[in-house]
Amino acid sequence: MTTLPDLAAIEAMDAADPLRPMRDRFVLPEGVIYLDGNSLGAAAPAAFAELQKAAQQEWAQDLIRSWNKAGWFDLPTRLGDRVGRLIGAAAGQTVVCDTTSINIYKALHAAVALRPGRSTMVAEGGSFPTDLYVAEGVASTLPGAALRLEGVDAARIEDLIDDQTAVVLVNHVNYKTGELRDMAALTRRIHEAGALVVWDLCHSAGALPVDLDGAGADFAVGCTYKYLNGGPGSPAFVYAAARHHDAIRQPLSGWWGHARPFAFEQHYDAGSGIRRFLCGTQPVLSLRALEGALSLWEDVDMAALRRKSVALTDLFIMLVEARCGRYGVTLESPRDSVKRGSQVSFAHEHGYAIMQALIERGVIGDFRAPSTMRFGFTPLYTSYRDAWQAAAVLEDILRTEMWKEERFSVRAAVT
Amino acid sequence: MTTLPDLAAIEAMDAADPLRPMRDRFVLPEGVIYLDGNSLGAAAPAAFAELQKAAQQEWAQDLIRSWNKAGWFDLPTRLGDRVGRLIGAAAGQTVVCDTTSINIYKALHAAVALRPGRSTMVAEGGSFPTDLYVAEGVASTLPGAALRLEGVDAARIEDLIDDQTAVVLVNHVNYKTGELRDMAALTRRIHEAGALVVWDLCHSAGALPVDLDGAGADFAVGCTYKYLNGGPGSPAFVYAAARHHDAIRQPLSGWWGHARPFAFEQHYDAGSGIRRFLCGTQPVLSLRALEGALSLWEDVDMAALRRKSVALTDLFIMLVEARCGRYGVTLESPRDSVKRGSQVSFAHEHGYAIMQALIERGVIGDFRAPSTMRFGFTPLYTSYRDAWQAAAVLEDILRTEMWKEERFSVRAAVT
Repeated sequence: MTTLPDLAAIEAMDAADPLRPMRDRFVLPEGVIYLDGNSLGAAAPAAFAELQKAAQQEWAQDLIRSWNKAGWFDLPTRLGDRVGRLIGAAAGQTVVCDTTSINIYKALHAAVALRPGRSTMVAEGGSFPTDLYVAEGVASTLPGAALRLEGVDAARIEDLIDDQTAVVLVNHVNYKTGELRDMAALTRRIHEAGALVVWDLCHSAGALPVDLDGAGADFAVGCTYKYLNGGPGSPAFVYAAARHHDAIRQPLSGWWGHARPFAFEQHYDAGSGIRRFLCGTQPVLSLRALEGALSLWEDVDMAALRRKSVALTDLFIMLVEARCGRYGVTLESPRDSVKRGSQVSFAHEHGYAIMQALIERGVIGDFRAPSTMRFGFTPLYTSYRDAWQAAAVLEDILRTEMWKEERFSVRAAVT
Repeated sequence: MTTLPDLAAIEAMDAADPLRPMRDRFVLPEGVIYLDGNSLGAAAPAAFAELQKAAQQEWAQDLIRSWNKAGWFDLPTRLGDRVGRLIGAAAGQTVVCDTTSINIYKALHAAVALRPGRSTMVAEGGSFPTDLYVAEGVASTLPGAALRLEGVDAARIEDLIDDQTAVVLVNHVNYKTGELRDMAALTRRIHEAGALVVWDLCHSAGALPVDLDGAGADFAVGCTYKYLNGGPGSPAFVYAAARHHDAIRQPLSGWWGHARPFAFEQHYDAGSGIRRFLCGTQPVLSLRALEGALSLWEDVDMAALRRKSVALTDLFIMLVEARCGRYGVTLESPRDSVKRGSQVSFAHEHGYAIMQALIERGVIGDFRAPSTMRFGFTPLYTSYRDAWQAAAVLEDILRTEMWKEERFSVRAAVT
C-alpha cells in the first residue's frame, strides 16, 4: 500500500511548484478552497484593472472615440489571437464573441454547408447538453438533417461516422467525467470518413495544452470564463482553420461580419477570414475584463501547466480513494491521466448532500445529477495543499455523517 | 422672422427643466458637448457602482455561489422587466440577452414559424443594415423565403405588405434621419394583412415613450447601450407579446432557454414564456453595469422626457437653420416633431470633414455616409445650453471654413 504524503510533503510540493507565483495573481477568498474553476474561474486583479480602465476612462471619458482609440472594434480578433496561442491556433483563426451555444450554431451551419449531400450530424449523448440543444436547432433549419448520438445510436462515436456524416461535434474534455479525447486521432478518423469536426474546448482551453492546428481540426468553440478566468459569462470563442475561411457561410450574418461594416450597405457581403463568424456588437466591458485575465498567460509554460494538472489530480484521486473509499465514494474520471482533463469526479449516492456539506465547510466543488461530485483543479491557482485539505474535509464529512443533516439535502433553485 | 433666443434665455430653459437633476447622475467629460448618445450613451456612477460590486464581491469573493446569491441567473428576465417598463411591455415579455442582430434572428424565425404558408419578409431599404443582413441570414435557412425592401421593391412599406407577407421588420426610429414611425397605425396595417411585426427599438427605447402592448406589437428588439446607457456593447433585449409565448420556436435553442436548464437532459424542451428567447450564458459584468444604468429610470416621467426631447431638437433645428443654413447645411430629419425621434440629422456635401472639425472642437456627433451629420439628444443629460453651443460651434466652423483643413478629410478606419 502506498504511504500517503503528510502535510510537510504536500507543502514541499507547493514550494517546488514552478507555477506557484501565479496564485498570487488571483483573488482567492479567505477560508475557501476553490475547486470550481471548471465552472467559473477565479478573479484576477489584472482583470479588474482593465475593467476599471474600460469603464472609467474609455467609456466615461473617451466615449464613442474609444471604438478607435482604445481598439474596441478589434477586441474579438485581438482576444481571439490571444486565446489562439493557448489552443494551438495560428493567428487569424480565432475570434472571441457571443456565447458557446451561438458559436456552436455558427460552426455547425458552416460545417454542414461545406459538406453538401451529407445530412447527418454526430454528437455525444453525454455532451454538455447545450451542444445537443443547439444541434437540434441547426437541424430544425436543415430539411432532412439527422442527429445521431454516441451512447444512444451506438456505444462509440467512431461507429456513428459514415459517408452520410457531415460533421461531428465532440467535447475535448467531458464536462461531467473529465474524460479527455485524443484530438488528433479522432480528427483523423472523422476526416477519413470525409466529414468535418467541431471541437468543444470548454473544459480544455486553459486547462491543458491544445493543438488545433497540429491535429488538423476544422472548427472549435469554447468558453472563456472557466480555466481562462474571463469573468462570469465572458464571451466565448470560435475557431476555424484557415483553409475553410473563404468558404464559410453561416446564417448569423450581422454587421460585424460584413466586409465593409461602416459602408452601411443593403446586402450582406461576408468579411474575410475568421471575421465571418462575427455577428453583432459585443459586450466591451466583459471583453476588457477577459483581456486582463488573458494577460496572465503570457509567461505560462503549457507543458508545466499540464504536469501540475496531472500531479494535482493524481494526488487528489489517491487521497480521496485512500481516505474516503470505504464510505462509498467511487472514481468517475479516467484513472489514466493521459485520458483525463483537469478535473476529478467522484460518484456517491448522496453526492448532492455531501457537496452541500463540503461547500459549507469552505470546499467549493459542484454537483451534477444524479450522483457526480465534480472537483476542478486550475493549475494557475490551485495548490497541492488545496487538494490535500479538500480530501481531509471530505473524509471528515463522510466519517461524521455530517452530510445527513437535513439542510444539506434541500436543493437550491440553481446548482 | 423668429428672434433667436440668447444665452440667458437658454439658461432659463435649463433652470426650468424638470429633468435637469438627472444630468448630475452621469459623468460627462470636461470640455465636451456630447451629442452621440444615440450611438453610445454616457456613463453613470450608478453603473460603475454595480459593476464594481459585481466584480469585486460577487465574482471575486462569492464566485460560483453568485449565480444564486446575487441573482445572476435571473438577470435576463429581471433586466428585461426593467426595460419593459420603458417600452410599454407588461412584465414577463422582455429579456435582455445577446445582441440586437441575434435577437432579430430569433424574432424573425419565430414570426415566420407562426405564419406557415407565407414566405415573404418585408423590411426597409433604409434600415440599419444589420437588420437586413440578418434577414438575409434567416432567409438562407428558409427554402423559398423572399425579402422585399421598402425603397427598392416599392416606395412605401405599406405597399409591400400582402397575403404572402409573414413578417415585417421595421425600425421605430430611423438611425440615419431620426424619422419616427407611427407604431400603432403600422402594426394595425400589418395585422390587417395577416402578418406579424418585429419592431426595432434601437433608436427609440429610452429616447421617447414606447407602447408595445398598447400598439398590439408582436415582437421587438433593441439595444441598451444608446439611450439606456448600459455601457459599450451591453446586451440587447427582445420582446414577445404574451399571446405568442406558447408557440414561439426559434433555432438558437441553447441551455438557458430550456425548461429545466439544470436537469442536463439530452433533448431540448423550450422553457415557458419569454425565456424561449434565451440561448447561452450571458456576460454578467456587462449586464450588471446595465442594471445600474437602468436604476436611473425609476423616477423618470416619460412624458416629460419626450417634451424635453422635442424642445431640444426643435431648438437645435431652429438654431442651426438660422445660423448655418447659408453654408449649405440642410435638414434631413422630419421637421414635424411628431414624426421625429430624439436626434437631428443635417446633410452637407462636406459633412465628414465638418463633423471631424466639430469633434476636435469638443462637439461630438457622428457621420453617416455619404453626407449625414447626426446629432443625438439624450433628454436625461443633454442641456439646452449644449444645443445652443453646438450650433454656435458649427456656425463658427462653417464661417471660418475651418473644416477645409486637410486633417479633417482623412478618414479613420472606424467612424
